[in-house]
Amino acid sequence: MAKKKLRDHDETAAEYQRGMAEIRKQLGPMADGYIRRIKALAPEFAWVNVTFPFGELYTRDVIDLKTRELCTVAALTVQGFSQPELKLHVKAALRCGASRGEVAEIITQMIAYCGFPAATNALMTMKEAFDEVDGAGKSKKPARRKHK
Amino acid sequence: MAKKKLRDHDETAAEYQRGMAEIRKQLGPMADGYIRRIKALAPEFAWVNVTFPFGELYTRDVIDLKTRELCTVAALTVQGFSQPELKLHVKAALRCGASRGEVAEIITQMIAYCGFPAATNALMTMKEAFDEVDGAGKSKKPARRKHK
Amino acid sequence: MAKKKLRDHDETAAEYQRGMAEIRKQLGPMADGYIRRIKALAPEFAWVNVTFPFGELYTRDVIDLKTRELCTVAALTVQGFSQPELKLHVKAALRCGASRGEVAEIITQMIAYCGFPAATNALMTMKEAFDEVDGAGKSKKPARRKHK
Amino acid sequence: MAKKKLRDHDETAAEYQRGMAEIRKQLGPMADGYIRRIKALAPEFAWVNVTFPFGELYTRDVIDLKTRELCTVAALTVQGFSQPELKLHVKAALRCGASRGEVAEIITQMIAYCGFPAATNALMTMKEAFDEVDGAGKSKKPARRKHK
Amino acid sequence: MAKKKLRDHDETAAEYQRGMAEIRKQLGPMADGYIRRIKALAPEFAWVNVTFPFGELYTRDVIDLKTRELCTVAALTVQGFSQPELKLHVKAALRCGASRGEVAEIITQMIAYCGFPAATNALMTMKEAFDEVDGAGKSKKPARRKHK
Amino acid sequence: MAKKKLRDHDETAAEYQRGMAEIRKQLGPMADGYIRRIKALAPEFAWVNVTFPFGELYTRDVIDLKTRELCTVAALTVQGFSQPELKLHVKAALRCGASRGEVAEIITQMIAYCGFPAATNALMTMKEAFDEVDGAGKSKKPARRKHK
Repeated sequence: MAKKKLRDHDETAAEYQRGMAEIRKQLGPMADGYIRRIKALAPEFAWVNVTFPFGELYTRDVIDLKTRELCTVAALTVQGFSQPELKLHVKAALRCGASRGEVAEIITQMIAYCGFPAATNALMTMKEAFDEVDGAGKSKKPARRKHK
Repeated sequence: MAKKKLRDHDETAAEYQRGMAEIRKQLGPMADGYIRRIKALAPEFAWVNVTFPFGELYTRDVIDLKTRELCTVAALTVQGFSQPELKLHVKAALRCGASRGEVAEIITQMIAYCGFPAATNALMTMKEAFDEVDGAGKSKKPARRKHK
Repeated sequence: MAKKKLRDHDETAAEYQRGMAEIRKQLGPMADGYIRRIKALAPEFAWVNVTFPFGELYTRDVIDLKTRELCTVAALTVQGFSQPELKLHVKAALRCGASRGEVAEIITQMIAYCGFPAATNALMTMKEAFDEVDGAGKSKKPARRKHK
Repeated sequence: MAKKKLRDHDETAAEYQRGMAEIRKQLGPMADGYIRRIKALAPEFAWVNVTFPFGELYTRDVIDLKTRELCTVAALTVQGFSQPELKLHVKAALRCGASRGEVAEIITQMIAYCGFPAATNALMTMKEAFDEVDGAGKSKKPARRKHK
Repeated sequence: MAKKKLRDHDETAAEYQRGMAEIRKQLGPMADGYIRRIKALAPEFAWVNVTFPFGELYTRDVIDLKTRELCTVAALTVQGFSQPELKLHVKAALRCGASRGEVAEIITQMIAYCGFPAATNALMTMKEAFDEVDGAGKSKKPARRKHK
Repeated sequence: MAKKKLRDHDETAAEYQRGMAEIRKQLGPMADGYIRRIKALAPEFAWVNVTFPFGELYTRDVIDLKTRELCTVAALTVQGFSQPELKLHVKAALRCGASRGEVAEIITQMIAYCGFPAATNALMTMKEAFDEVDGAGKSKKPARRKHK
């Protein structure tokens, strides 16, 4: 029967390798563990996570990575509930060349589009990300949930 | 005067009893404590919580409970902020006959409708629910707030 | 068999009558048509709509109707997508004693909690409501969907 | 240079063909035009739309298509702003074997998770979908935007 | 060059002083620390936070502070993700003359507009605020993040 | 009495003039009419709209205007309901130097953060903005509400 069912995904495939390379570039040393944890819960979710945003979208040259990351910071700020992912992308923005001031500026700009509650939450998450980057890692105020 | 004010609700009424029976069927042993805690804060909230979704909506035969619970899992996944309720309904879905794989599949499907941040949060909450069901209850990573 | 299935709801019941009285008080002459239209699509939806928010919540004396309506205007403003219902509740607020200036003030206050896009949309919907109240009903800019 | 840039996607590839077959099964005759319109605006968006949710997620056997579609109806109902996509998926649910009563029931159930504004909007969009299926297609009340 | 760049904001200016007076009235003794913490992260964010909602919006006489705060409680309840700010405003509502029963009533009313998940989260946050006011401050269930 | 009430705002003040200059730079010829329409409904809303995001946030040099506008496009895309404002900012992005391809790319990237429904709506709004810029202004498919 032709119906594709529970495909075994081939992690040696070019699209998966390209995605993993990109995710490592953005997330740094935590990348492999992040995907491994998702894969343990839902292999299909992990496959899509690697191949679609990272293997496909982020590897296109149309827009530079720093601008992409600032746009993602803006998007996650206005959503209000995406704190774990926002923390990840604040770090990714720094890794892609954004300064701390630029990240804070975009979050501040978002006040106009999402109001103070979401923007304030984002600012606090940004601080946690900065603290972790500073190795002050022993933050006593963890983000809502750590899944990195 | 005819104006209905602060009605004393009759918890022996058929609609309340039907709601409590339904909520126990879905939430299991935690059901009574859950409602009791809400009632201590806002009796009207508790009354509505028992009689409306559980006493009224969920007891209609049009759709089987398992499908209803998967739809609720889908809805809470895309909302992004409903983690405590999502955890409750992941367990309710299992109790109503859904497999773990089916729950993970619906959350994975939701990537297409809410993106990765909300879907990833839901996946992590699903894991917490599974862990609690497994008696691994001593989870060090509690959902945002426990009100069960 | 005891399982409650597709209950025929008794519209002469006190809770339904109380709800219809309340909904007429708030929505005015459009109330009956509004519920009739919903009932034609989903009788259960209509029953719940009449008995739950209107028959139950709004008839409690704890908070006066004008304050309740301003709170609902605030809530629908920040949601951003509830334009048809917001229009209804702007009119209900006026009917419950709020001035136009007070409605505009609450929407303006909401800028701080939802940002300009949602607040601006609400302001435009408020204008449509005012225009309709003024009998300028031939508004060329209908809300997203009319279901009153 | 190895950097993957603006890839030319191969629409004869198995994943694209599988996605188009699935999208036609769900959306019916409007499928090809829908994708063509998106492709004219953003070829990458169209490629991802075909290969990711349709070519990848929906073709897995874990959950039957009817249940998947009801879950999508639930998700789009609570989002509140996804009316054009909800209309599409109401029709897809019918095409996959759901009855009109089942679709209405899920939307009614969602009142408990998203409140009346979002659920009422969804009910009205459901009606538009039913009307279009009935060939009453000349609906004078179009959804917010038609992009089918 | 005329382009205004990184303005040094003058905290002795009337608008800033007026904003700080208002924020102290509403938030009480925690006000200064709250703003100081934000300023350490993003001075522009803090300036806007003081001068815009507090210095500008809340000091207008059109609507009394108690009603304003209940509207803000309603708005933050339906947002679902604004728990730290909701806790602040529950306390502010009490400080502006609202009773605990009135706060609970507005959150209960919101069930109709946002469903149970968001309303239940709000109810639990309300409880935390009440507990803190009661000096039971050693709450074991902290809000998602404390940034007061 | 010192209490500031309904302040008469001075539109010759530097902050207002700076805001109007900025809003004209971004929105072009439609800027004055846009603010005038808001002012007719709620003068306070208009004052805040001019002085806060435009007079204050957008005139800071930390981030160039093109990047700011792309971030705003990202934010409004994920919100899902901000179509009129998104159309405005798509045009503003072009006016600030972004290419059409860059705008489409950011909206496509957002699929990963908000899913297809919100991203597809944004893509269609982008097309309307492009059409209007092309003088094809006689678009038969207006955005949900025109308030420019």
